[in-house]
Amino acid sequence: MTWIDMPANSPFGPDNLPLGVFRLGDEEPRVGAAIGDQVIDLAPVASAQMMDGAQWFARPSLNDFLALGRPTWQATREWLLDLVRNENDREVVEPHLIPQSAVTMQLPFEVADYVDFYASEQHATNLGRLFRPDSEPLLPNWKHLPVGYHGRSGTIVASGTDIVRPSGQRKAPDATVPSYGPSQRLDIEAELGYVVGTPSVLGKPIPVDAFEDHVYGVVVVNDWSARDLQAWEYVPLGPFLGKSFATSISPWVVSLEALAPAKVPLPAQDPPVLPYLAGESLVNYDITFEVYLNGELVSSPPYKDIYWSPAQMLAHLTVNGASVRTGDLYASGTVSGAQPDQRGSFIELTWGGREPLIVNGDKRTFLENGDQVTITAWATTNTGTRLGLGEVTGRILAG
Amino acid sequence: MTWIDMPANSPFGPDNLPLGVFRLGDEEPRVGAAIGDQVIDLAPVASAQMMDGAQWFARPSLNDFLALGRPTWQATREWLLDLVRNENDREVVEPHLIPQSAVTMQLPFEVADYVDFYASEQHATNLGRLFRPDSEPLLPNWKHLPVGYHGRSGTIVASGTDIVRPSGQRKAPDATVPSYGPSQRLDIEAELGYVVGTPSVLGKPIPVDAFEDHVYGVVVVNDWSARDLQAWEYVPLGPFLGKSFATSISPWVVSLEALAPAKVPLPAQDPPVLPYLAGESLVNYDITFEVYLNGELVSSPPYKDIYWSPAQMLAHLTVNGASVRTGDLYASGTVSGAQPDQRGSFIELTWGGREPLIVNGDKRTFLENGDQVTITAWATTNTGTRLGLGEVTGRILAG
Repeated sequence: MTWIDMPANSPFGPDNLPLGVFRLGDEEPRVGAAIGDQVIDLAPVASAQMMDGAQWFARPSLNDFLALGRPTWQATREWLLDLVRNENDREVVEPHLIPQSAVTMQLPFEVADYVDFYASEQHATNLGRLFRPDSEPLLPNWKHLPVGYHGRSGTIVASGTDIVRPSGQRKAPDATVPSYGPSQRLDIEAELGYVVGTPSVLGKPIPVDAFEDHVYGVVVVNDWSARDLQAWEYVPLGPFLGKSFATSISPWVVSLEALAPAKVPLPAQDPPVLPYLAGESLVNYDITFEVYLNGELVSSPPYKDIYWSPAQMLAHLTVNGASVRTGDLYASGTVSGAQPDQRGSFIELTWGGREPLIVNGDKRTFLENGDQVTITAWATTNTGTRLGLGEVTGRILAG
Repeated sequence: MTWIDMPANSPFGPDNLPLGVFRLGDEEPRVGAAIGDQVIDLAPVASAQMMDGAQWFARPSLNDFLALGRPTWQATREWLLDLVRNENDREVVEPHLIPQSAVTMQLPFEVADYVDFYASEQHATNLGRLFRPDSEPLLPNWKHLPVGYHGRSGTIVASGTDIVRPSGQRKAPDATVPSYGPSQRLDIEAELGYVVGTPSVLGKPIPVDAFEDHVYGVVVVNDWSARDLQAWEYVPLGPFLGKSFATSISPWVVSLEALAPAKVPLPAQDPPVLPYLAGESLVNYDITFEVYLNGELVSSPPYKDIYWSPAQMLAHLTVNGASVRTGDLYASGTVSGAQPDQRGSFIELTWGGREPLIVNGDKRTFLENGDQVTITAWATTNTGTRLGLGEVTGRILAG
C-alpha cells in the first residue's frame, strides 16, 4: 500500500494520514502528516507539486486549513493518499520525511470554543451514584438531550505538557467550612474530541445530518479533573475550577474520511428523541481507548456504546442558534463501558477512591505527583484492521 | 477641561476616554477613543505625533493594545488626556474627530475565554427562590467562593446586533416529556464585564492583589438568557443553551484608571474568606445600571453592593493554575439590588413571570419579538460627577 517503510502495527498506516503541527529544532512550527513513525513535511512537498494548498501547511496551526471545508479536505486527502502509495512520488516526498522522534508536536489547532458533553450513559450513571448517592443517578433530562457545558479553551494543552496539580477549595463531607489546598482527588477523563472546521452562522442551527459539513475529524482528549474541587463548586452552575486547569489533546487530528470504515450504528435511543436530534443514519465509531498509568494498562473504555452520536451533539449545541467557529472542539465526555475495567476515570475505576486499583504492585486511587497518564485510542474498521488515533500523555507535577 | 465641544452630561467626558473599534464607511475598522459624541481616530493622530503605539490603533480589535500591559495603557491614557486638554493639540486632532453618528461600532476585542460569575447576593437569592423553591436559596458554597462558569465566547456580539429568539428543549412543570420550540421565557441579565489585557502563565495563580496588573477595564454586558431552556438543561453541568445563543457587550472599554474615582470599599464578607481571596484593599465600583425596555426605564441595578470584588473573581478563576489570555472577559453575573426596581433580569422583575410589569401601558413579563433592550451604566465618582460606560442594546427577532 505504500513505499514508505513503517513499523508493524503502527497507528498511522497509509490509510490514516492524520494531520498535526510539528516543530523541528529552531524552525517555525508547521503542518505535517503522520505515516508510520515519520512525519511528512507537507509545505515543501506541496510547493514542489505546485499544490494550491502549500501556503496552508506553512502555518503554526491547522486552523487555516480547517477553514477550507470538506471538498478541500477530501482533495487534500486524495493527494496525500497518492503521495504515499505512488512510487513515482518517492523522489519528491522522501527528502521531506522526518522521524517523529526528531520533532516536538504542538497543539494542532488554536481552540476557539470548547464544549464537553456527558454522552456515556455508563459514565453519567456512575458519576450520578458517586456525586448524588441519595437520588436517581441519571437526571430526567439525560436521555432527552446530550447534556454539555463549556470548558476553558485557553488551558487546552498539547500532549506531553506537564500538569501542575491544581489547588483550590474543597470541603470534606464532615467539615463545616471549606479548606484550601492541593487537590487530593486528581483524576483523568478519557474522551473523544471532535474538531470543527467549517463555521456556521449565528442564529442558524446545524441540522443533525450536516455533521460532516462542519467537523473535520477527531482527537483523543484527557479532560483532567479535580474531583474534590468539582464536588464543592459545581452547584448550581456546573464544573469550573475542577476542570479548567488543563485539558490535554492528542497531536494528530484523524479525519472523518479515515475513520469512516469504523462507523457503527448508534445504539437504539429510548425514549425517542425530538425531531431535531433524529436522523436517518446516525453513527458512532468503533473506537477503543486504552488508559495507562505509569505504563500499566488500567482501563479499556469502548466508544461504540456511547449514547449520543456526535451529529446529535453538534445539532444540540447549535439548536438555539449558537454558531460554531473553525477550531471549536467538542468532546464526548468520559467514555465508560459496562465492565469495571472499561471505566474512563479513576473516580469510577476506584469507585470514589474506596476500591483501590493495584498498579505496578501498589494500591492506587487518585493521581500522585510524578504519575504519567497516557491514553491511546484505536479504531476498528469494518475489515477488521486497526487505525490509531495516537496518544495523549501528561505527567503530574506538584502544585 | 477640553477644547472639544461636547453635549452636557455626555457619558464620555474628557476624563473618561474609553477605547473601542469603529468602522467608517468602507474603511478598515480601527481603534478610536470616545469623547462626547465624537470619536478620535487614533491611528493618524498617533502617527502625526510619532507615537510608538500608532501601529496598534490601526487594528480591527483592541487585543494587540490590550496585550501591552498597564504601564503602556497608562502612558497612552496620559497622552490622550493631553490631546483633549491641550489647545495646542487641536490642530493635529481636529481633522480626525468623527461624529459617533457616522460610524458603526464593532466588537471592541476578540474574546478569548468568557467566564460569567454569580456575584450578586440578591440575584443569587432571587434565582435560588425561583429555580429551587423547595430549598435554601443560597447554596452552601456561595459565600465561600465566587461561583462562576464558562460561557460561549464565539457568540459574544457587538451592541446593536439583533438577537434571534432561540429555540430548544423546555419542559413544562406538569409535562412528562420536553417539547421543542422557541423560548417563551427570553430574558436579559445586566452585568459588568472585566476585560483582561495582560496574560498569565499556566500553573501560576494570580494573587488577589494583582488584579490591576491584568485587567484593562470594563464593559456593560447583557447576557441574554432563555429561562425555559436553562431550567430544563442546567442540572448537573450548569447553564448551556439557555445562555450560549448570544451575549452582547457595549462598544467602549472604560479603563480602570478612568473608573478609579468611582472605587468604593467592598461590603464586609461574613463568613471570612480563605486567605487566597482576602486582600487589604478590595474594592467595588459605584456603578448604576439602567435597563430600558423599548425606551422605558424598568430597572436601576446598583453595582456597588455586589458581594464579590472583581479582584476576588480573578484570583478564584486562576487559583487552580488556569491561565488567562489577552481578550478574556469575565462578567459579574446579573446585578440586582434589594429593591424590586433594582433587579437586573425580567425573571426577577416579574418574579418568574407571575407579576407583570407595566411598560408603555402594557403588561409585560418576558421579551417579545421586536422588543429592544438597552442597558446603560454610569459610575459615580468620589467628587460626585458621573462617568458613563455607554450602552449595550439589542432587538429581538423571531426565531
